[in-house]
Order: sequence, then structure tokens, then C-alpha cells
Amino acid sequence: MLDIDDQTKSAERILAFRDEQGDVAQDFVQAVADAIDAGDADRAQELVRPLHEADQGALIEALPADVRARLIELLGDVFDFAALTEVDDSVREELLEELPTETVIEGVKDLESDDAVYILEDLDKEDQDEILEGLPATERIALQKSLDYPEDSAGRLMQTELVAVPPFWTAGQTLDHLHATEDLPDSFFEIFVVDPGHRLLGQIFLDKLVRSPRIARVDTLMNTERRRVHATDDQEQVARVFERYNLVSAPVVDEAERLVGVITIDDVVDVIQEEADEDVKALGGVSSEEELSDRVATIARSRFVWLFVNLITAFIASAVLGLFEGQLQKMVALAVLAPIVASQGGNAATQTMTVAVRALAVRELGAGNALRVTLRESFVGLINGIGFGLLTGLVASIWFHDWNIGLVICIAMLVNLVAGALGGILIPLTLEKFGADPAVSSGVFVTTVTDVVGFFAFLGIATLWFGLS
Amino acid sequence: MLDIDDQTKSAERILAFRDEQGDVAQDFVQAVADAIDAGDADRAQELVRPLHEADQGALIEALPADVRARLIELLGDVFDFAALTEVDDSVREELLEELPTETVIEGVKDLESDDAVYILEDLDKEDQDEILEGLPATERIALQKSLDYPEDSAGRLMQTELVAVPPFWTAGQTLDHLHATEDLPDSFFEIFVVDPGHRLLGQIFLDKLVRSPRIARVDTLMNTERRRVHATDDQEQVARVFERYNLVSAPVVDEAERLVGVITIDDVVDVIQEEADEDVKALGGVSSEEELSDRVATIARSRFVWLFVNLITAFIASAVLGLFEGQLQKMVALAVLAPIVASQGGNAATQTMTVAVRALAVRELGAGNALRVTLRESFVGLINGIGFGLLTGLVASIWFHDWNIGLVICIAMLVNLVAGALGGILIPLTLEKFGADPAVSSGVFVTTVTDVVGFFAFLGIATLWFGLS
Repeated sequence: MLDIDDQTKSAERILAFRDEQGDVAQDFVQAVADAIDAGDADRAQELVRPLHEADQGALIEALPADVRARLIELLGDVFDFAALTEVDDSVREELLEELPTETVIEGVKDLESDDAVYILEDLDKEDQDEILEGLPATERIALQKSLDYPEDSAGRLMQTELVAVPPFWTAGQTLDHLHATEDLPDSFFEIFVVDPGHRLLGQIFLDKLVRSPRIARVDTLMNTERRRVHATDDQEQVARVFERYNLVSAPVVDEAERLVGVITIDDVVDVIQEEADEDVKALGGVSSEEELSDRVATIARSRFVWLFVNLITAFIASAVLGLFEGQLQKMVALAVLAPIVASQGGNAATQTMTVAVRALAVRELGAGNALRVTLRESFVGLINGIGFGLLTGLVASIWFHDWNIGLVICIAMLVNLVAGALGGILIPLTLEKFGADPAVSSGVFVTTVTDVVGFFAFLGIATLWFGLS
Repeated sequence: MLDIDDQTKSAERILAFRDEQGDVAQDFVQAVADAIDAGDADRAQELVRPLHEADQGALIEALPADVRARLIELLGDVFDFAALTEVDDSVREELLEELPTETVIEGVKDLESDDAVYILEDLDKEDQDEILEGLPATERIALQKSLDYPEDSAGRLMQTELVAVPPFWTAGQTLDHLHATEDLPDSFFEIFVVDPGHRLLGQIFLDKLVRSPRIARVDTLMNTERRRVHATDDQEQVARVFERYNLVSAPVVDEAERLVGVITIDDVVDVIQEEADEDVKALGGVSSEEELSDRVATIARSRFVWLFVNLITAFIASAVLGLFEGQLQKMVALAVLAPIVASQGGNAATQTMTVAVRALAVRELGAGNALRVTLRESFVGLINGIGFGLLTGLVASIWFHDWNIGLVICIAMLVNLVAGALGGILIPLTLEKFGADPAVSSGVFVTTVTDVVGFFAFLGIATLWFGLS
């Protein structure tokens, strides 16, 4: 089988799994589905073997839900359980429930500890224990320790496999150790230097190690300034440190500064992606848990909550309109134009809010510049308020042949855009100050402000100007 | 000066630069500002020397704009020009204009090629050439080659410093080469294997190299399956490959498969962050170019465009209201309630659109599942439409003591939520199909649909039901 064409064949297979756009190729999925139907393990293994774990994950997701577990059983050793870290949570949970415990234990055994933790952490305590018990003791203890750290902490993200050496070793000794030792992590970029109490002293990247004189002691080579993270740090904090200092990996220490693991950038990329996802979804009124593979009922329920809150605010805004029923009846043009004032204010406020929420999320906005940004936003609101006030006033005057109505809407628009700018920046800042997530909750408050202020300003000014009541 | 306390002192200084929240400490910034005012280069250097390039960048941003260039002059060698890759574009551009060309040339000389390209690429051709001419020939040629690749391409992102060896070398020979050669990249994780034509054959991570027998040939050790990217690939495509396959670095090849550079994950993290930023901002109606350090006039102008488009759609929606002026006058309750129908539809549609836009951005939504997701969203719209129709109908009936109005708003709400769901998914899909960025333009279309359908459904059904006209 291993002939000169083997590499080309495998390249062809990789190409065939994804089409030119990089999407999963439907005919490949069909071929796998056919093999599953036929119970043809050889064919399934032949198709899946060349696939990267990420592509195995993508394949699982592309298959109908009811054949996924059967594929994994057919594949045996060929299936890389790391693929399960690449699929949607709901897909993974369903699969883990369906698969026999022994299969899961066998699969988890081969994983790096961070991947194993990722798969285990969402299981309920009972299933978790059952799988842990099936694992070799050293692995079980390491995983249990990671799982004991809080959810979304550095301790959950780290892998416990690492290389640590004492400070009095030389570069040559360390290289010889790496050369001679069987039981090393699958891949690593650096070695750590620890004291007898396993406290972290410093770290040396492999490229530095191989370029150093063999007789140099590692404590003279090591970098002591590296950013370390604490096992209990939140993963967002960890991501911030990685991003800020362009790290590729970072040692994780416990409360006694003892080295307990290492976090690598690929896990952090997932966190960054997740965070961005949460921000986008929260601003759009969607739960961060929602996934493309969720069922209709799950989605409808989770979105209902946000829409319900919005309905209440919509009624509040309408109640303001209701206060002016008499005026609306006397001058129906007011009813026709009022939504324009509210909508324009809402959009301007959303712009400000978006900038504020994102800047807070990436920590670009803080006590140091909050005042400056608030002033700036107010000015932007004022300038655009004047611009759109005049524009809307002009169009409204022409439409209803009455410059009075143009004047009224012009002033109302100005007021609402300034109010929107202030709301758009102060509401996220206030929510952040009180520990709420501004991405999730700012939207409701902000549009309530612009709806209420918009209707109130427009109809209130109209009442005064036209002497309606 | 170099005593046992040195490390502690530098740790204290790092601590002092950021407060407990990780924000830049104001007193540190003040101390630097004082040193600049006094023209005290020693003090400025003492303060800034221990800072990481990223923190140097943060310091630059925290200082008033008019003293930044003076600080860089005072710092001389102590200032790391890589810090300029960490600041907002507008800050960097201003600084590069203010600084004498010689200072910039000296600073760029010490950078890795990817950082140098990042700094040079936004300058106008003339300034760029002036700086390039001041650089040593080899560096100039390498930078020029990178700059010749299109904007936002892999060729711009890559660094050209790398280690490549011929396939017939042994592991021992390679390690000896690394050990003996002075002129190596500042840091690297892997060595590449190339043929005499510099075509990429494979790659070996350093950890594998040090663990291999010294006599093994590198072409027996190398990994040939690694994902490579082409220099002309778009950076988003590159980011997608890194994310999908959890890469730490990837070789960059030209059209003849010759190795021309290497992209490391830290640059890709910036791309991922940028992309997420663009999505968030686009959905909020803010230009992706907008930065927190921009001036009021710049921001007001850039936001005006989006608000102007929104104003037009608001007038279109109001024109629909205008069609029913007579009915609104006869039944003012319709004017009070109409915005609720429009707003609820808008929010539901925004939820769907957010999910669709994000899924398109991360390539989770494609031809393979577009139909399924559209059907799912329609069902969600139907379910929530029934729920909110009944709820709103009930409240409206009680408010206006008329079950007829409740019935009308119930049906209108149902219609609008289904329309919103369809608009929320089909509009982004259509925009994507025609090559437009769905994040930027979906919002306007979607809310126009829900405003127009909301007003039309509610007032149209009311007209029929109550026999108004």
C-alpha cells in the first residue's frame, strides 16, 4: 500500500473532503453515510483516516444525527476523540450519551489533558465519574485536578503535560533529557524551570535552548519576565494577556506559585472567538448558548425571553404615545412622523452603544478615557442631531406643506440624537460598573430611552408649539 | 545597578504600569509626562525600559497626542518600534509623520519583517520609499517583496525570517547549524525543509527535532501534511485555516510553491480580533475603520452615512403609515399600537439576522444547511409570532377595552414575526451570494421589511376588519 503515490492520494482525499470554497463536500459526506449504512468499517476507515481531527469533527456535524454514533463505533481507533472538541456542544452531548462508556473511556485515554477536560466538563457528575474511573490513575488525578477549578478558568483550559527541569541543570543536560525521555508531551515549545517545591522560576523556548552553549545552566538562560496566569483566573482575562503580549503559551501556577500546567494559544483562539461570538449575539438579542444545531423549540424559548423584555419596552413607548392621543387625533401628521424620530434616535444610540460595548469588551474603554469618550459621543450626537434635524425638518415641511411641523420635528430630532448618544455611552458604562454584561442588557435600555425621549420630545414640543391639548 | 533586587524592582515597575484591573495606571502616565516636560531622558528611559512593547504602545496611547513624538525621541534605543504595531492606526500615522525619517529608519531596522511591513504599509508611497532607501539592501528587498503582495494578504502578514534546510541533512547536522549560526530569526518554533529550488517539502517542529536520533535525515522526520498558505491568500482565509486546524504557525509559499515566509499565530489572533470587531461594528451601523482615538468630525461624518440610509427607510415606513391617515384619524388606538408591531418584528428579525451573519462569517452557514436553517427560523418565527400575537392582543384588548383591536394586532404580529424571520435569514444569504458583506448591509433591509410589513399588516387588517376606509 505504501507506494510513491500515497502522498498524492491522501492529498486528493483531503481536497475531496472540502470543496473549493472550503465547505464540506456533500459527496464525501454521502460516501461516508453509505459506508455507515452498509456497516462497511473498512470503507469508513479508509475515508476518514486521512482527515485532520477538525475535519473529522466537521464530518460528524455534516452527518445526520442518528448515524453519528455508529460512525464512531465503526471507525474504532481511526476516530480521534479530539474531533469532539471541534463540534457544537449539543452535538457532543448527544453523542456522549449515545456512545457506550467503554468507547468514551478508550477515546479520552489518548487525549491531551486539556482536550479531555473540554469533553468531560459538560457531562453530569455521574457520567464524568464513570469515565474517570476507567482511566489510569495518573491521568484520572490530573483530570480531576483540572475539573476542580471553576468553569471558564485557566485551570480548565490548561494542559498538565509539560517539561520542567531544575535550575542547576545545563542546556546540554536538558537536551539530553528531552532526547532520552519517552514520556513527553505530544508537542511543546518551551521547557520550564522550577525549584524543588515545583515553584515556577522561569522558562526557556526551545529555539533558545538549542542555540545556547551546552554548558550554560538553565537558570542563566531562562526568561523570568514571562507572563504567568493563575489557575483560577477567568479565561477572558487569560485571553486578554495572550493578546496583549502576543504570547504563544503561558505557564499556569496555583495559589502557591507552583507550576500546574501550560496554556497554549490554540485554546485561547477558541476563547477569543467565543467571546466575540458572545458580544455579537448579545448585541443582537440572542443567547450566547444558541448554536446552529439547536432545535426549534430550544431556540424559540431562548429568544422569547429577550423579545418579551422588548415587548414591555415597546408598550412603555406606546404608553407615551397614548398620553398624546388627543393631539394625534387633531394632527394625524404627528402619528405618521413620530416613528421617524424614535427610529433615527434608536439607530444613532445603537452606533454609540456598539462602540462602547466593544471597547469595554476589549478593555480599550476605562476610567482613564470614559469622560473624553462621553464628551466626544455627545458632540457627535449634537452634530448629527443638527444635520438630521434640518434634513428631516425640510422633508416633513414639504410633505405636510407646513414649516411648523418641520421646525418641531427638527428640534425633537436634535434632542433625541443627543439623548441617544448619552444613553448609548452612559448605559453600558453604568452596567459595566455594576458588574452586569453591557453587551447583553444595554440594547433594551438604550432603545427604551430613544423611543420614550423621541415620542415625548416630538409630541410635547408639538403640543406647545401648536397649542394643542 | 545590577543587584539581587533588580528583578523585584522591575516587577514593581511592571505592576505599577497597570492597576489591579489591568488598566494603564494614571500616575505612571503622569510620571512619564513629567519626564517629557522636563526633557529628562534618563528618567523617561528608566521608566519605560522595563515595559513590554505592548505596554509601551499602551503608554503612547495614554499620553497626550502632542508629547508622543517627543517621548520616542527622548527614549532613543529604549523605545521598541514594535510598540507601534500595538497602537490605533490613526495614532501611528500621526506619529510617523511627526518623527524625523532617520528615527523611523533606525526603529524599523530592528524589527522583524512582519512588524516592519505592518508599520510601512499604511504610509504613502513617497514616505515608504524614503524609509526603505535608508535600510540595508537585504532588508529592503525582503520588505519590498512583502509590500508588493496585495493588502490584507498572507504575504503582508508573514515574516520572511525563517530557518530552512535541505532534505539530506541529518537532525544532528541541523541542530549543529542552529547552534553555530548567528543570523537566525529572533524566535522560531520549527524548521522548514526545502529542495534546491526552495520549494517547500515539509516542516519539523523543534521538539521533534531534539527528540530524534542525530543521524536521522530530516526528510524522514518532516511532516508533509502541514497546511500551507499562499502568499496571495486573503488574511481571513488564513485565519480560518489557523482556527480550523489549531495551527501555531504556517509556511507561506508563492505561486511556484517556493517557501517565502512564515505566519505565526500572534498575527492571526490580531486578524481574528479585527474580523470580530468588524462584524460587531457593522451590525451596529459603525464603520470598521472607526477607532476610539478618532476625532469628533471624522466620526460624525462616517456615522452620518449609515444614519442617512436609515432615515430614508424610516421615511418609507412612515409613508406606509401615511397611506392610512384616514384610518389613523378615525381610530387613534391604531397610531398608538402600530409601533409595537413594527418594533417587535424588528427585534425578532434582528435575532435571526445576527445568527445568520455570524454563522456566515465563521462559515458555519453554507449551501449545505441554508434550507434547513431557513425552515428552522421560519418555525421559530411562527411559534414566537403566535405567542407574542396572543400576548399583545390580550394587553391591547384590555387597554382599549375592545377585543377586536386585540384580534387585529394578534394577526398582524404573527404575520410580521414570520416575515421578520424570513427577512432575517434570506437577506443575509442573498447579500452573501452576490458578494456583499451581509454584516454591513443586512440591518437596513431587514428593519425596512419589518417596519413596512408591520405597519401594512396591522393597518391593512384593521381597515378590513373595522370596515374603515
